[in-house]
Amino acid sequence: MSSPASTSNADWRARSLAHVWQPCTQMKDHESELPLIPIARAEGVWLEDYEGKRYLDAVSSWWTNLWGHRHPTIVGALKQQLDTLDHVIFAGFTHEPGILLAEQLAARSGLPRCFYTDNGSSAVEAALKMSFHYWQNLGKPNKQRFIALSNSYHGETLGALAVGGPSMYRDSYAPLLLQPIFVPSPDCYTRTPGQSWEDHSRRQFEHLRLVLERHADEVCALILEPLVQCAGGMRMYHPLYLTLARQACDEFGVHLIADEIAVGFGRTGSFFACEQAPPAVYGRGAKRGITPDFMCLSKGLTGGTLPLAAVMTREEIYQAFYADYAAYKAFLHSHSYTGNPLACRAGLASLSLFEETNALSANAVLAQLLWAHTAELRTHRHVAEVRQTGLILAVEMVRNVAKREDFPASERRGLRAYRHALEKGVVLRPLGNVLYLMPPYAISAKDAQKMCEVLCEAVDVATRDPA
Amino acid sequence: MSSPASTSNADWRARSLAHVWQPCTQMKDHESELPLIPIARAEGVWLEDYEGKRYLDAVSSWWTNLWGHRHPTIVGALKQQLDTLDHVIFAGFTHEPGILLAEQLAARSGLPRCFYTDNGSSAVEAALKMSFHYWQNLGKPNKQRFIALSNSYHGETLGALAVGGPSMYRDSYAPLLLQPIFVPSPDCYTRTPGQSWEDHSRRQFEHLRLVLERHADEVCALILEPLVQCAGGMRMYHPLYLTLARQACDEFGVHLIADEIAVGFGRTGSFFACEQAPPAVYGRGAKRGITPDFMCLSKGLTGGTLPLAAVMTREEIYQAFYADYAAYKAFLHSHSYTGNPLACRAGLASLSLFEETNALSANAVLAQLLWAHTAELRTHRHVAEVRQTGLILAVEMVRNVAKREDFPASERRGLRAYRHALEKGVVLRPLGNVLYLMPPYAISAKDAQKMCEVLCEAVDVATRDPA
Repeated sequence: MSSPASTSNADWRARSLAHVWQPCTQMKDHESELPLIPIARAEGVWLEDYEGKRYLDAVSSWWTNLWGHRHPTIVGALKQQLDTLDHVIFAGFTHEPGILLAEQLAARSGLPRCFYTDNGSSAVEAALKMSFHYWQNLGKPNKQRFIALSNSYHGETLGALAVGGPSMYRDSYAPLLLQPIFVPSPDCYTRTPGQSWEDHSRRQFEHLRLVLERHADEVCALILEPLVQCAGGMRMYHPLYLTLARQACDEFGVHLIADEIAVGFGRTGSFFACEQAPPAVYGRGAKRGITPDFMCLSKGLTGGTLPLAAVMTREEIYQAFYADYAAYKAFLHSHSYTGNPLACRAGLASLSLFEETNALSANAVLAQLLWAHTAELRTHRHVAEVRQTGLILAVEMVRNVAKREDFPASERRGLRAYRHALEKGVVLRPLGNVLYLMPPYAISAKDAQKMCEVLCEAVDVATRDPA
Repeated sequence: MSSPASTSNADWRARSLAHVWQPCTQMKDHESELPLIPIARAEGVWLEDYEGKRYLDAVSSWWTNLWGHRHPTIVGALKQQLDTLDHVIFAGFTHEPGILLAEQLAARSGLPRCFYTDNGSSAVEAALKMSFHYWQNLGKPNKQRFIALSNSYHGETLGALAVGGPSMYRDSYAPLLLQPIFVPSPDCYTRTPGQSWEDHSRRQFEHLRLVLERHADEVCALILEPLVQCAGGMRMYHPLYLTLARQACDEFGVHLIADEIAVGFGRTGSFFACEQAPPAVYGRGAKRGITPDFMCLSKGLTGGTLPLAAVMTREEIYQAFYADYAAYKAFLHSHSYTGNPLACRAGLASLSLFEETNALSANAVLAQLLWAHTAELRTHRHVAEVRQTGLILAVEMVRNVAKREDFPASERRGLRAYRHALEKGVVLRPLGNVLYLMPPYAISAKDAQKMCEVLCEAVDVATRDPA
């Protein structure tokens, strides 16, 4: 049945284009605008095609890869798991990797209950369903709506898509989607000149507070991406917003769902982004960090190896579903491969590397390096903002900085930057006119410097007016 | 961070219950009704706990496992893949396992275009979105609804859940769900005595035809599980229904989405269940089988090893999204691990075993064996029906056969059968009062006989009135 393997980029490209429909892609772009690149192998931060050309994976393969590709700890753990238990139905049965991973995620998140799914979208769906069902089980049938932030992104299945902000992902499917209550994002790119991040995020919170005052009776949960709205263009906000949102959700009896799918696992500087929320009141014993009612995890969960996701939640929420069978209160959500032992084993191996590599400290140094090596962009005539949270650094390219005038979408400046960077051997997949760095933690100082240089060049090339 | 490994079932059970929320489970059942079983290792059709007790995986770990656990061909292929390419972003990039698998699925399904997702629910969501978006791109904005069969099941994310028939899975979330148009299922358990499967399914089709006549203008697609409604109690129908549905969808300009997630990959006797549809008109050159507009695949796709799913579709549908970027017609759906190379490699290894083991012929023999070894159930006083399609054999337990009087749900007869079978070392997870066999294809004749004997015993024990 199988055709023989090809050996050239061109062969694999043609074969791929004949059958494979790539995600999040206008396939016609691959006719000419974008080279579709067949990857033969990967190691560390490097991807390699069939002609030996190497590409630095500066976007961590869609924000999933933490330790570089094929890290020996993860590969070794997976091979051992393959020699023991590949997979088993997770209803009625359980297994070591699923238990150990749940234990560790509980210890790290402060949320003792772990419900596995396969991808971020499914985790968001499970959290939305759990929140809604919790209120139903508690006899609050009017709580049926969700609050979401403008410019947010939570996934692609219809429930997850519905709570993403109006956007090119969402708008095409509007008639199929639930209508949440959108509140303006605390996104600090939109602050007025001279305003501090903290002040802007605090002011933006007032919109949320008003909505909660008015609608709490009909609302199950607020969902947000802590600190960085990633797919929305790596837009960032002050952690105070998390503190205020947590307080307000408590006050008005609404759940807080933290979508840490992209920002969790050390990406923003702390292990989870929620840990950066400042104390509500400073003073003796004041503690940093909030605990959401639901935390959605995926992407970095397996270190970039296999699909896996989890929803962490509180004991009280678990208990609201815990009843005699005949009460029909159970959470009957399931996916066939829930708790897949191989994926859970990859997750455990990845978690072990945080201590082993002292990752959070090392990341802080790396973050400074990225900032230092992108200094020139901060005075670039077509860069409105360079912003950074941990190991996410984003560059907002505009036509006119003073007027904050955007490049027209039709000019596809981001795409120009992407093509240039690829030529130079760096993967810098843009989000519209935003370029960003989100490298594997394992990147060397030398490779980080190269990556930053290519980013600076790419911004130059992309913002130059065509001759 | 990690706690030491436990060595006893009791230890692992307690640790699991402290943190893991099992899918599709009332967790309180695990206090007493159901033993939660920690699995230490698996090989072939056998699962083994921490005390050396073995369980025959008669449900193929939620209908995913085809070749037994840890088949050396799949394990070997995965280890090789781990030494080459673990994962890479699948937008802008492609790779050998993703391409080869798409080629083979295209050849086998007759649908040339392959869009990957991670689980069955996500595949169904992608198919629903593609169908809707196709009609939008073609300038038919009124096509916004879906037709689904009563008693169907298509997954758990909100879009997939919406097109599942009213049920315990769906009803809890009704206010969050799209309202499809439900038509009565062709399910032949509900036929009148003496009526043939073919006649019943043909009559049930008339409901679908009427709905299409009335609503085609507002309908994107009909979605169905070909031949067997699995989660709905392994309810089966005549393949003629597929022929008639395909004809009617063509006539009325509505897509047909075949959810082959559970029934594909040889489970029903043919490679895909859709292949069993009889020709519309018999005669010279008449060909068996229909081609849907979308085919959703998962579960057996990787042979039971890793989560992976795919939506296969027609060239014309792909072309409706193929346009200049500025036309904004692209299908922007994505998941981080789309096209995961490890999962695709497992898929290729699994497909290679169909030829290597001559699986479809061997399965036909095995199917006869299951039928022969369950003869006694066909005259059992509490069995209303034993039905079979390929390697799915289901037993409908009732209080009174003549009156078709069900056991009350509260008596949980299926659970009794499950517990008895576990004691005897066989996993027979029930669907309400329906017990079923859905074993890995690799099961030996001897193990198949044992499995059938335990099924017969379990039916006896479960239907006996309590002393």
